[in-house]
Amino acid sequence: MSGVFGIYSNKNKDVSRIIYYGLYALQHRGQDSAGIAINNNGYIDYHKDLGLAQEVFNNDELNRLRGNIGIGHIRQSKVEENTIANAEPLVVGYKKGALALACDGALINFNELRGRMEDGGIIFQTFTDTEIIANLIAKYHEDDIEQAIIRGVKDIKGSYALVAMTNDRLIGIRDPYGMKPLCIGKLGESYVLSSETCALDTIGGKFIRDVEPGEMVEIVDGKLKSINTKEPQDKRICLFEIIYFARPDSKLDGKSIYLIRREAGRNLAKECPQDGDIVISAPDSGTVAAIGYAEESGIPYDEGLIKNRYVGRTFIKPTQELREQGVRIKLNVLKENIEGKRIILVDDSIVRGTTMKRTVSMLKEAGAKEVHVRISAPPVIHGCNLGINTSRGDNLIAKGKTIDEIKEIIGADSLCFLSLTGLLEATGGEDIYCTGCFKGEYPF
Amino acid sequence: MSGVFGIYSNKNKDVSRIIYYGLYALQHRGQDSAGIAINNNGYIDYHKDLGLAQEVFNNDELNRLRGNIGIGHIRQSKVEENTIANAEPLVVGYKKGALALACDGALINFNELRGRMEDGGIIFQTFTDTEIIANLIAKYHEDDIEQAIIRGVKDIKGSYALVAMTNDRLIGIRDPYGMKPLCIGKLGESYVLSSETCALDTIGGKFIRDVEPGEMVEIVDGKLKSINTKEPQDKRICLFEIIYFARPDSKLDGKSIYLIRREAGRNLAKECPQDGDIVISAPDSGTVAAIGYAEESGIPYDEGLIKNRYVGRTFIKPTQELREQGVRIKLNVLKENIEGKRIILVDDSIVRGTTMKRTVSMLKEAGAKEVHVRISAPPVIHGCNLGINTSRGDNLIAKGKTIDEIKEIIGADSLCFLSLTGLLEATGGEDIYCTGCFKGEYPF
Amino acid sequence: MSGVFGIYSNKNKDVSRIIYYGLYALQHRGQDSAGIAINNNGYIDYHKDLGLAQEVFNNDELNRLRGNIGIGHIRQSKVEENTIANAEPLVVGYKKGALALACDGALINFNELRGRMEDGGIIFQTFTDTEIIANLIAKYHEDDIEQAIIRGVKDIKGSYALVAMTNDRLIGIRDPYGMKPLCIGKLGESYVLSSETCALDTIGGKFIRDVEPGEMVEIVDGKLKSINTKEPQDKRICLFEIIYFARPDSKLDGKSIYLIRREAGRNLAKECPQDGDIVISAPDSGTVAAIGYAEESGIPYDEGLIKNRYVGRTFIKPTQELREQGVRIKLNVLKENIEGKRIILVDDSIVRGTTMKRTVSMLKEAGAKEVHVRISAPPVIHGCNLGINTSRGDNLIAKGKTIDEIKEIIGADSLCFLSLTGLLEATGGEDIYCTGCFKGEYPF
Amino acid sequence: MSGVFGIYSNKNKDVSRIIYYGLYALQHRGQDSAGIAINNNGYIDYHKDLGLAQEVFNNDELNRLRGNIGIGHIRQSKVEENTIANAEPLVVGYKKGALALACDGALINFNELRGRMEDGGIIFQTFTDTEIIANLIAKYHEDDIEQAIIRGVKDIKGSYALVAMTNDRLIGIRDPYGMKPLCIGKLGESYVLSSETCALDTIGGKFIRDVEPGEMVEIVDGKLKSINTKEPQDKRICLFEIIYFARPDSKLDGKSIYLIRREAGRNLAKECPQDGDIVISAPDSGTVAAIGYAEESGIPYDEGLIKNRYVGRTFIKPTQELREQGVRIKLNVLKENIEGKRIILVDDSIVRGTTMKRTVSMLKEAGAKEVHVRISAPPVIHGCNLGINTSRGDNLIAKGKTIDEIKEIIGADSLCFLSLTGLLEATGGEDIYCTGCFKGEYPF
Repeated sequence: MSGVFGIYSNKNKDVSRIIYYGLYALQHRGQDSAGIAINNNGYIDYHKDLGLAQEVFNNDELNRLRGNIGIGHIRQSKVEENTIANAEPLVVGYKKGALALACDGALINFNELRGRMEDGGIIFQTFTDTEIIANLIAKYHEDDIEQAIIRGVKDIKGSYALVAMTNDRLIGIRDPYGMKPLCIGKLGESYVLSSETCALDTIGGKFIRDVEPGEMVEIVDGKLKSINTKEPQDKRICLFEIIYFARPDSKLDGKSIYLIRREAGRNLAKECPQDGDIVISAPDSGTVAAIGYAEESGIPYDEGLIKNRYVGRTFIKPTQELREQGVRIKLNVLKENIEGKRIILVDDSIVRGTTMKRTVSMLKEAGAKEVHVRISAPPVIHGCNLGINTSRGDNLIAKGKTIDEIKEIIGADSLCFLSLTGLLEATGGEDIYCTGCFKGEYPF
Repeated sequence: MSGVFGIYSNKNKDVSRIIYYGLYALQHRGQDSAGIAINNNGYIDYHKDLGLAQEVFNNDELNRLRGNIGIGHIRQSKVEENTIANAEPLVVGYKKGALALACDGALINFNELRGRMEDGGIIFQTFTDTEIIANLIAKYHEDDIEQAIIRGVKDIKGSYALVAMTNDRLIGIRDPYGMKPLCIGKLGESYVLSSETCALDTIGGKFIRDVEPGEMVEIVDGKLKSINTKEPQDKRICLFEIIYFARPDSKLDGKSIYLIRREAGRNLAKECPQDGDIVISAPDSGTVAAIGYAEESGIPYDEGLIKNRYVGRTFIKPTQELREQGVRIKLNVLKENIEGKRIILVDDSIVRGTTMKRTVSMLKEAGAKEVHVRISAPPVIHGCNLGINTSRGDNLIAKGKTIDEIKEIIGADSLCFLSLTGLLEATGGEDIYCTGCFKGEYPF
Repeated sequence: MSGVFGIYSNKNKDVSRIIYYGLYALQHRGQDSAGIAINNNGYIDYHKDLGLAQEVFNNDELNRLRGNIGIGHIRQSKVEENTIANAEPLVVGYKKGALALACDGALINFNELRGRMEDGGIIFQTFTDTEIIANLIAKYHEDDIEQAIIRGVKDIKGSYALVAMTNDRLIGIRDPYGMKPLCIGKLGESYVLSSETCALDTIGGKFIRDVEPGEMVEIVDGKLKSINTKEPQDKRICLFEIIYFARPDSKLDGKSIYLIRREAGRNLAKECPQDGDIVISAPDSGTVAAIGYAEESGIPYDEGLIKNRYVGRTFIKPTQELREQGVRIKLNVLKENIEGKRIILVDDSIVRGTTMKRTVSMLKEAGAKEVHVRISAPPVIHGCNLGINTSRGDNLIAKGKTIDEIKEIIGADSLCFLSLTGLLEATGGEDIYCTGCFKGEYPF
Repeated sequence: MSGVFGIYSNKNKDVSRIIYYGLYALQHRGQDSAGIAINNNGYIDYHKDLGLAQEVFNNDELNRLRGNIGIGHIRQSKVEENTIANAEPLVVGYKKGALALACDGALINFNELRGRMEDGGIIFQTFTDTEIIANLIAKYHEDDIEQAIIRGVKDIKGSYALVAMTNDRLIGIRDPYGMKPLCIGKLGESYVLSSETCALDTIGGKFIRDVEPGEMVEIVDGKLKSINTKEPQDKRICLFEIIYFARPDSKLDGKSIYLIRREAGRNLAKECPQDGDIVISAPDSGTVAAIGYAEESGIPYDEGLIKNRYVGRTFIKPTQELREQGVRIKLNVLKENIEGKRIILVDDSIVRGTTMKRTVSMLKEAGAKEVHVRISAPPVIHGCNLGINTSRGDNLIAKGKTIDEIKEIIGADSLCFLSLTGLLEATGGEDIYCTGCFKGEYPF
């Protein structure tokens, strides 16, 4: 998962700070690296490094990066790919000049495309999808940049929200199924592109509309232009954006993430009623659904687990030895509020199940009489390379297991999942989501 | 406000990491500086700097700081005193050898004591209370260290929880009124002192008991000894520890902070009932009381404001210009959940009122039909130098104003404060708290 | 100018420190960036950044970079190209796996090659020759790596000393004219490649021999193999290596740089005799020649200018304003030793002339009676892109000017250059040097 | 050893950069820590840390430190005292307000004074002489600052050059014997104090005069005032300033360090003639004397050892293992220039002898036929705590040994020291130097 942001300013010559606050608002989409590229009178300069946006940038760097067009990126990496080389934006020179790219997405034909390119003698300096895309664009350099991008992404199978910058324009493009989010906003006269609307709120901007699936938008000479890539398909927005990825104060496809999640919690209460003393959430992912569950069930919403939030790149993780000695960094139980109670624990999803198992065990040790786990999404049973990066699905706790078996593994007294119908109903009922990880049917 | 932590280990020769995690758990008590001092076979080494514990320490520093006794400190500063010189622990050499001190407290006779010392030719390298205390201890160096501390603190007027280390012992002492918290725990065979119990949970330790008001405890040769300073007074625990400072998962004087705050929220609902659509909190300080209010009133608990939590020392604050352009860093409104609704906004207290005014205004702009502010503590009308550092109280919004006037200033549709009786009742009703900021009666 | 270093160890699994000290010994060849790439069981990891080797690497980085084969690079940049992207080694993935390259050289057909590649749809992430070379190697990936390199460099016009590493071998190759230096050494059983022999001395290694012009050497399975690229030409070693670039304690093509420079100084005394009180050098470049001049002339060698040597990447250069106020950072005059004296000032060369002009002026201000400038090389009158990077030569002080005119510009009382014959005679008289910048005849 | 610098500016409100360049010019006097304190309208702010001046300060820090009076300090530490706490300037608050002190010196009654102060209940936060002095000044706070300093330093036995700053004045004072250097300069209308004159040259300033032994100078309201402390004694300038500490381009007590050292070299040639092929120096300390020796003897001056100068605080020193494997960081031999030759190796002094032994051995290994060591100072046979910090002298190679025995230890073919008469004659023959380390007679 990643976050992308772009801005085209007619007047403001110093957009790097706006991008910085935009990335800060998207920080939940990735904490592994951050970067900003700025067009300064035709020359593209950039800075990127491992860490949070605030760890990567200081005043000196932001002062150096001056210009009127810029893009930014924050990234969540697989551990083994968390190197500075993979940080974005990717800035390259090619036949037509400088090009900067920032991408949130996942190519499922990465190996095939890279293999084919390597056969053609191409070298790679990163392990990112974005370098593949840059090569595809450069391949079609005889076309103008818009056509080159359109032709380039035709070779791609996968989800993507791509923000591109040349020395005179800002471009955004969303995959044909709209799996990854990308929206358009304005800040005064400046145009803004962002993975989520919450970044528009943070910078004091105004939401205009989502980029449509398969649509390319371009800001040049201060004007926004929509370019039909002739590629739109039925919308297949990644349901995990709704369930987990997006910030609750963002809107996606015109819908409030918060309201959907709360409605899912309400539906969960209807589908999976349970007697209990309090409804608590697995912080922070389950909070909104827990609030909905509490409201619908009439059982009070309460807190049972306190999360320590002071964690950055430089935090020193406890050694195995210290963990075994009982050092618990992230979560602490509110023992006094748990002891002797029947707990309804709500979370948004279970993927591998290890965290949930640990959480249930903490509650039991703290004296919970019963722990009833309620999940505001169906069991994840199919591997996915487009959104949640579970590959072949071998680590999915729900794959090939009955609900009862999962319940035993996590140590809960009962376990119940919201049905897919119940989840979709919470979104408003339109058939616009990818349900691959639940049903196994992917766009590709 | 500050956080203190100390550990005496018989076996474990590497206590610096335990202190690091202890400080991490106390990080909510101060984000301005952090430090650790370690006794390594009679030589006290230390490291301290501005920033969060995780920003100040890296593996190299923790590896360097080896030893079996150690103390740590995290600090919240007044802006003008936020310098590295004021970071603690303070490590000094005096007649009896090395002495390290970490203090959470506020001396109200600081100026008098420092003035008298300066008259005596003493120099100061910091602006901390702790340097005053170190000088007092050194003054009585002919006594043994325990007596020197006891005699030293007799000269002090103020609140304090002090952790001290020499080359062979760890000492903790709490002011005669117990205004500041300090507790004792064990981690295996090691003894631990901590401002709050949540740090004991984090390191996997066990709560033993609070240090009593006026009690000195000493760990030497692996054994804990209590020393009667003949000074205990009636307990006067700072109520703001209960209301705001302490982490909800801590226990203070045997009582769960969480349960008190929730009960205060319930009492608030009883005393200040209000028709409304949802109960929301000013995150994060008002959350527990809001949950209590919702439960008692039957109006659903919900969220209206989303807080961005990725903030560290290196975060670049928006310029005045950007703030005026609408850049909003910390909070975003859940517009879709606020629009057209009658909001009951619960917070734990109002001190200066500026944040509350901004919050109400954000809710109104987002379309809230009504905003009813409910505060789970009485109006703060007296300046305090012992806990909340409001000096003469000139900036207190409630000082000399009627509730109605305050309501007008913050722009709320209604405003109601929990009575002192209602607050104390939530704590269990014992007369053990300082209520100075509400009633003007201080221990000194 | 750059410095390259490589090592293949059979036993020692931790070669990164050896490379670090190797780069430290080559630091005079470039202070702008440093980097090390290490092969760790088939996976190539690396670290590089702007600054001196000691500024770029800390213990943590060296500990992370573990493996038995490694290469390093230090780089002098044109100001505008001094970015982290241009730091080397360049590590790429291509059809055959991972490849790391470190190059000291200058391609004169860079623009042509890059243009042709861009036409072919290739993207570039740096402005280095090395990325061009990597693309050439990848183009011939169907050959084995040795042939791919040989075919790749055939397309190149320019000087280069290239060190390459795959997951199982270390390769070195020197351009057909041997313009850039590269030598082979041993450290115990390990093979070492280095720009200069002084790095072999520093790591405690043994000089074996120079890589021959046009020769490729390969260390694989612990054995050194020489591969004939069928390309050797008449040797055309860059004379500026002899005059200025190389460290005096290095040997190049079997000859001591120090002895050549001193002999040039002696010849200079013969060709350009001058009565004077003392012979001084422009530190540090003119020192060896000044010693030779003094010896031959019988006029005592002395010091007139003291150089402050504490300069690193983080040094804050004086502003224009401070420079105008007289802040002089690098050099100070030994006024007492200069006043009233007839000074013979020896330097190794004059390129742009600005430094020499300032030096003469400092000596005059300090009261020198006469300043006679003696240069141990001929006037540089032709631009060069292979070694000293003077491009079209527009800034060369000697281009199109008489000796007398130059003398006037720099403010000297007399000026005399060593003849090319005199310089070559100092080297031993073999016809193995490129004299392009003096005579305008380049290998290309 | 340390370096001190101070400036009082009437107009220039930004003196921190001037101090920075001043410290840079004094960097040879200490590489362990650096610091600057600035008076900004009565408030003294400062920054100090371990490392070279250029490592400690960046633009942000220099921009923060704004004001019209300032002092700076660079420090050479004993290894065990090289902590940030000991970095200077020391900034303290005392009865009269803020006071900043920077001191180059050595108190021989440190233990006695500190012991007495500790008896009086005083605490210490550093191990510096300067903290002792600050306490002495504060003790006499009822006097005005000038008298307090004068009375304070009366209690001191030792060498010192002290620079002090209050919120409105800059003060300099030199010990009664003038053991440590301190001079006065002007930069435009600003007054400057500096350990050495070379710093005046660097900032573009003008030398006025030395501070006299026992003299206090004060700059207040833009005017320089000399205050008679009634304490001057016979001058006893530390001869090691002449021999080794000071930069050759400095003048001390009106005499050029360079000219004295060269004359000492000449005298050495007269007293210790030796047939040989070349005269070389142990870089860089012996260079000036070697030049003098060469001139007098008629044997050519040449180079035999090349020094790598790129060393800063972050340089990673080779492990014992690597040193044993032959890694040689600092020096390399010019084998081609040494082989088969009779070498006259000149150095300025021998203290512990370990470096000289290693150097001779390197030359022998490189094939030197003979190595004749010539030292331009007498044997150091008495421990000193005032200048060269050799304490009780236990490590002095010359203590209790004949010249022949020393020769054997260092492995030279012959060894000869300049006589004290010869050395003093080189200085001009005045009886103004402390010769304690040679003769055992100290001022105290």
